[in-house]
Amino acid sequence: MPRDTASIVTRHQPRATSRPAWPPERRLLAWLHRMAGSPSIRLQLWDQSSTGPDQAAYTVTIADRGALYQLLRSPNMAFGDLYASGRITVSGALDEFLIHLYPSLAKGATLQPPWLARLWRDPAREGASEQDARLNIHHHYDLGNSFYRLWLDEAAMQYTCAYYEQPEYSLEQAQLAKLEHVCRKLCLKPGQTVVEAGCGWGGLARYMARYCGVRVKAFNISPEQIRWARERAQQEGVADQVEYIEDDYRNIGSGVRPMTRCDAFVSVGMLEHVGPANYPSLGQAINRVLKPEGIGLIHTIGRNRPAPVNGWIEKRIFPGCHVPGPVELMRLFEQSDFSVLDMENLRLHYARTLRHWRERFLAHREQVRADYDDTFVRAWDLYLAGSVAGFTTGTMQLFQVVFAPAASNRIPHNRHHMYRQSALAAGGKGSEKETAVAS
Amino acid sequence: MPRDTASIVTRHQPRATSRPAWPPERRLLAWLHRMAGSPSIRLQLWDQSSTGPDQAAYTVTIADRGALYQLLRSPNMAFGDLYASGRITVSGALDEFLIHLYPSLAKGATLQPPWLARLWRDPAREGASEQDARLNIHHHYDLGNSFYRLWLDEAAMQYTCAYYEQPEYSLEQAQLAKLEHVCRKLCLKPGQTVVEAGCGWGGLARYMARYCGVRVKAFNISPEQIRWARERAQQEGVADQVEYIEDDYRNIGSGVRPMTRCDAFVSVGMLEHVGPANYPSLGQAINRVLKPEGIGLIHTIGRNRPAPVNGWIEKRIFPGCHVPGPVELMRLFEQSDFSVLDMENLRLHYARTLRHWRERFLAHREQVRADYDDTFVRAWDLYLAGSVAGFTTGTMQLFQVVFAPAASNRIPHNRHHMYRQSALAAGGKGSEKETAVAS
Repeated sequence: MPRDTASIVTRHQPRATSRPAWPPERRLLAWLHRMAGSPSIRLQLWDQSSTGPDQAAYTVTIADRGALYQLLRSPNMAFGDLYASGRITVSGALDEFLIHLYPSLAKGATLQPPWLARLWRDPAREGASEQDARLNIHHHYDLGNSFYRLWLDEAAMQYTCAYYEQPEYSLEQAQLAKLEHVCRKLCLKPGQTVVEAGCGWGGLARYMARYCGVRVKAFNISPEQIRWARERAQQEGVADQVEYIEDDYRNIGSGVRPMTRCDAFVSVGMLEHVGPANYPSLGQAINRVLKPEGIGLIHTIGRNRPAPVNGWIEKRIFPGCHVPGPVELMRLFEQSDFSVLDMENLRLHYARTLRHWRERFLAHREQVRADYDDTFVRAWDLYLAGSVAGFTTGTMQLFQVVFAPAASNRIPHNRHHMYRQSALAAGGKGSEKETAVAS
Repeated sequence: MPRDTASIVTRHQPRATSRPAWPPERRLLAWLHRMAGSPSIRLQLWDQSSTGPDQAAYTVTIADRGALYQLLRSPNMAFGDLYASGRITVSGALDEFLIHLYPSLAKGATLQPPWLARLWRDPAREGASEQDARLNIHHHYDLGNSFYRLWLDEAAMQYTCAYYEQPEYSLEQAQLAKLEHVCRKLCLKPGQTVVEAGCGWGGLARYMARYCGVRVKAFNISPEQIRWARERAQQEGVADQVEYIEDDYRNIGSGVRPMTRCDAFVSVGMLEHVGPANYPSLGQAINRVLKPEGIGLIHTIGRNRPAPVNGWIEKRIFPGCHVPGPVELMRLFEQSDFSVLDMENLRLHYARTLRHWRERFLAHREQVRADYDDTFVRAWDLYLAGSVAGFTTGTMQLFQVVFAPAASNRIPHNRHHMYRQSALAAGGKGSEKETAVAS
């Protein structure tokens, strides 16, 4: 069982039974409801006393006195842990409940006195050292490939936002369309070379090799993912075109990892683990390795304005995670003398991706329960449902940024090349492509 | 004659004749060449003494001693004034010369000791008051509509970057394509309402009314432009759909100018005159007037990193002009709680637009000389050629940013709607669209 969800259980044993709530506790409950922006949600205590409208679509039940005090002390952190351990329950669909709650929390935050805002604030993350980065990545991505296989797409094991070019796409289709969309943005041509930072299970690298005819060096510090990626590259017959390298992005093109310059640099879903303090190091790595006429793309979760990641997500699910606002994000390119060519926000595509993931995850919940435990299932369900809500309500954004070295004039003339035909039917080989990738 | 180009002549009368350059002056010339990054350009003094390679493709001749000292004191400012008054001449094509020079100047800037960088630095502009804004805009845009008619496109009098969807487009075609591209990004539908800030001669507003069937309130503080725009709206039969309002963007939707909320907000080429200190005021104006499910677009000249505008351009051509880097630009949206949906960089399209403008300007130089004088012709030629060079070498960028209120989910699903068909041939347009509107 992963370290941190195990600690949810051991640290928060509920008291056997709780006596009825005292009047001051009921008043604290009402105050908590107000500080949450007075959502149309009923908060109920262990003795059935409650606050909030009677006709509310959702009821949150707090099972014991200790849970109430934890929630008052640190609501973000406590809600996650208490939900995971079953001491908080929610009636109704969890994702819809959170979609309902999030805008209210934002309103509530404007009502909080400064001392309370400080007390409840999530801790900010500035950037992980190489050592911390390995631990953080291990924590999340080395849960076991078999776990992620249960609910990610079959073809490319993409654990990042898909591209629903057509709203009715399946997850598999949308992930393939995402890979194609990224390749088009990079204007790849056969024979070119690509460096990828943070390659996950290597699906994008294999796709670029097979369908764009390029050679790829793909970096990742998760041993589990690298192992899988290499096996799949062998099976798919692209092992001679794709080199998976177990190393940190900071070493790309450095003294310890010298390499010839590449035509394209791409990083999908890694920046969230980098942290703004390390953006200059990332920019230097790109500058070391990208040709003066090359093109780069960074795909990352973002926000409309900077704010720390939810404390519970950061502690239990994604340690070391930081999600930039557009200003922070642009600073990466300004500092490193890149020219921003294109930026696309795919927020609602991520909401849809996450709904698909959650459906599959819940369909396999018994399997996950058997492999881990009930706390783990509830924690991950909350994480996925919370992410659906974040991208649906606009708390979270998804940015794809295309950039080039400042002096390059070998940049795409316009964006028609991204839209000439459906991303899935590229070159009229839609079905061929699907079968090829699935086989 | 406009105030500031008149002052170029009166302030810088050349000495009648200059004695041969002294040895220290020749050494200063060589030093100036080094501080300009040692370009492959010959600098020559009034007595034929020179520095730089003999085989250089370009020769810059400094006609008198006073000109040399002005150049040493404040090269950006002095070069413009001296070129305009004929005391500096350049052999060869002016735009190609500047394209050659600019990267070298950037290299030179890294060699300058801090005291010199301070001495030569262009002054920063933080933002103009309403009063200053009127004077600044009057200075540039009230030169006379007949002047701009000589070299802008006929159809829509667009004094902003065109969109060369096909590289071979004429200026007229590319300006119409730009208007269509902007309308598509705004997802306009018949019957909607639009607010435009900084409408120039009103071409976009008329286009939106005619081809998208919307009603437009268009703001501008240039009386000359407003007068023209109203006449054209009458002639084109859209005067009942377009209201041109002579007022500052800061008053949009304010107490002095209350108005109902609109479906779209657009501003093309105004932000350069706003200044970062006023970005919050602009954001507030947009927030006052845009519906919660509305869409906005800002089109502006930008840079890869913030730097003051060339001192001569700022003083003689565009007073109060400030060009943001991407970080500054994103701050506008972050501060005002907008979600950035899309950003496109059209830098090379502006280089092409400026080449077309300059060709037309030079074709009418005798007319301009007759209406103004030779100094004015040379000043404007330098401004246009310098802008060609700025956009060609990447000193300048052109950003189009699409945004929406943070909580809106009525945002375009993807960007296919911008590319389904040629922007010029929209709906089999050209003729068909015209008939549709006329009927």
